[in-house]
Amino acid sequence: MSDTAMSHPTKAVVTVTLKNGVLDPQGKAVGHALQTLGFSGVGEVRIGRVIELELAETDPERARQTAEDMARKLLANTVIESFRVEIKS
Amino acid sequence: MSDTAMSHPTKAVVTVTLKNGVLDPQGKAVGHALQTLGFSGVGEVRIGRVIELELAETDPERARQTAEDMARKLLANTVIESFRVEIKS
Repeated sequence: MSDTAMSHPTKAVVTVTLKNGVLDPQGKAVGHALQTLGFSGVGEVRIGRVIELELAETDPERARQTAEDMARKLLANTVIESFRVEIKS
Repeated sequence: MSDTAMSHPTKAVVTVTLKNGVLDPQGKAVGHALQTLGFSGVGEVRIGRVIELELAETDPERARQTAEDMARKLLANTVIESFRVEIKS
């Protein structure tokens, strides 16, 4: 759907992060790089994704359910990742 | 610094997103994939990164400045990306 068709889109923000206990090599690499750059006092680093979606759905609750459905079907690998959805009008 | 040395780490969450106007091919691909999966009413999709950091720094304001410094030096490409920092005790 083109942007023009969406006069007042609902904005959904889906944050996807690795589940606790799942190894995060990318996070480890960033942690080491930060220490190499001279930052001390850096503990665990975890990297995730944030997906900002414009939805034509204007009802916040239905928009939330749609975004959760999108997360389960595509945006997150629910075997190793968890997600949370925020709806912004 | 090992996790044990951090009894009460401060958690900083750095969210990195593309600046407005910067093309997001990944977002476009996700948008098409969502439509292919049968989701209608999907407008613009933007993908970003979220970096969760454990910092030994206990003062929230100094932790914020450190995280911002990390973002400018490593976590974000400030030419095409913007970032925001949230401090969680």
